Amino acid sequence: MYSICQKITIEASPGKLYQALTGQEGLCGWWTKTKTIGEVGSIASFLFGPNGEHQVDMKIIALVPNEQVVWKCVSGPWVETGLFTFDIREHDQGCVLRFQHEGWPEMDDFFQHCNAKWGFFFVVSLKSYLETGEGQPHPKDPSI
Amino acid sequence: MYSICQKITIEASPGKLYQALTGQEGLCGWWTKTKTIGEVGSIASFLFGPNGEHQVDMKIIALVPNEQVVWKCVSGPWVETGLFTFDIREHDQGCVLRFQHEGWPEMDDFFQHCNAKWGFFFVVSLKSYLETGEGQPHPKDPSI
Repeated sequence: MYSICQKITIEASPGKLYQALTGQEGLCGWWTKTKTIGEVGSIASFLFGPNGEHQVDMKIIALVPNEQVVWKCVSGPWVETGLFTFDIREHDQGCVLRFQHEGWPEMDDFFQHCNAKWGFFFVVSLKSYLETGEGQPHPKDPSI
Repeated sequence: MYSICQKITIEASPGKLYQALTGQEGLCGWWTKTKTIGEVGSIASFLFGPNGEHQVDMKIIALVPNEQVVWKCVSGPWVETGLFTFDIREHDQGCVLRFQHEGWPEMDDFFQHCNAKWGFFFVVSLKSYLETGEGQPHPKDPSI
C-alpha cells in the first residue's frame, strides 16, 4: 500500500490550524464548500465540482484539539483508500502540518493527481488562508 | 525505497513543456535560477537560496525530445536519492506531465517537504508559466 505524505510550515498557531481543519468556515476558506462538519463519529460532507455537484463524505475518526484530525472517506472517490491524518505540531515559526493519506493500492494516475493537488491546497491555499486570511479553495484551484 | 510521484495536465504542447524542462529560460521561469544546462552526460547547475548561494548539480541522464527528461543529482541535498524523471504525453487539453523522483530510503520530513514543494512548482509555477507566460520560480515560492 502507498501513502501521500506532505509536510509544511505555516506562520499560524496550532490552534488556528486546528480550526481550519475542523471548522466549516475554515474548511470552506481553503479546501472546498463544506456542507456539514461535526464531532468524532459524525459525517463531514464536502462539495466538489463547479457547482458543488459532487458530494464527498468523510467520517470523523479522531479529533485531538490542536494536535490531530483523522478522517475516513465513506462516500466518494477515496472510499477504497485509507485514513486521512492531519498532524499538527508547534514550531518556532508557528506550526507544522504533516499530512498522510494512506491505503492506496497503487501510485496510479489518481494518486499522482491527488498528490499534486494536495501540494497546491497546503502550500498555497491553506498557508495563504492562515497567513493572510485569503485561501484559494475549490473550485478556484487550478484545473490539473 | 520510496518515490515522489505527481501528475498534472497543462494547456500547452508537449514541445513547449519539453522546452520548459530543458532550456535555461524555461527552467529559470518556473523552477529556479539555472546557471548551466546541456545535453546528455553534462551537468545542469541550479541555484537556490535567497541570493542563489546553494548550488545543486544534476547530471543529465536522458533527453527524448518532447517525451522525457531524466536527471540524477550529483551534488546537493538529493545526492543520496535516485533519478528525477519527467514524462511528457500529449493530451486533449495539451499535455500531461508525470514526474517521479525515486530512491528515497524513507518518507522522512525532507521527502514530505519536497513532495509538497513539487506540488507548488508543478500546479502553480510550471502550469502558470506555460499557460500565461509567468511562473513563480524560487525564491518567489512560498517558504514552507
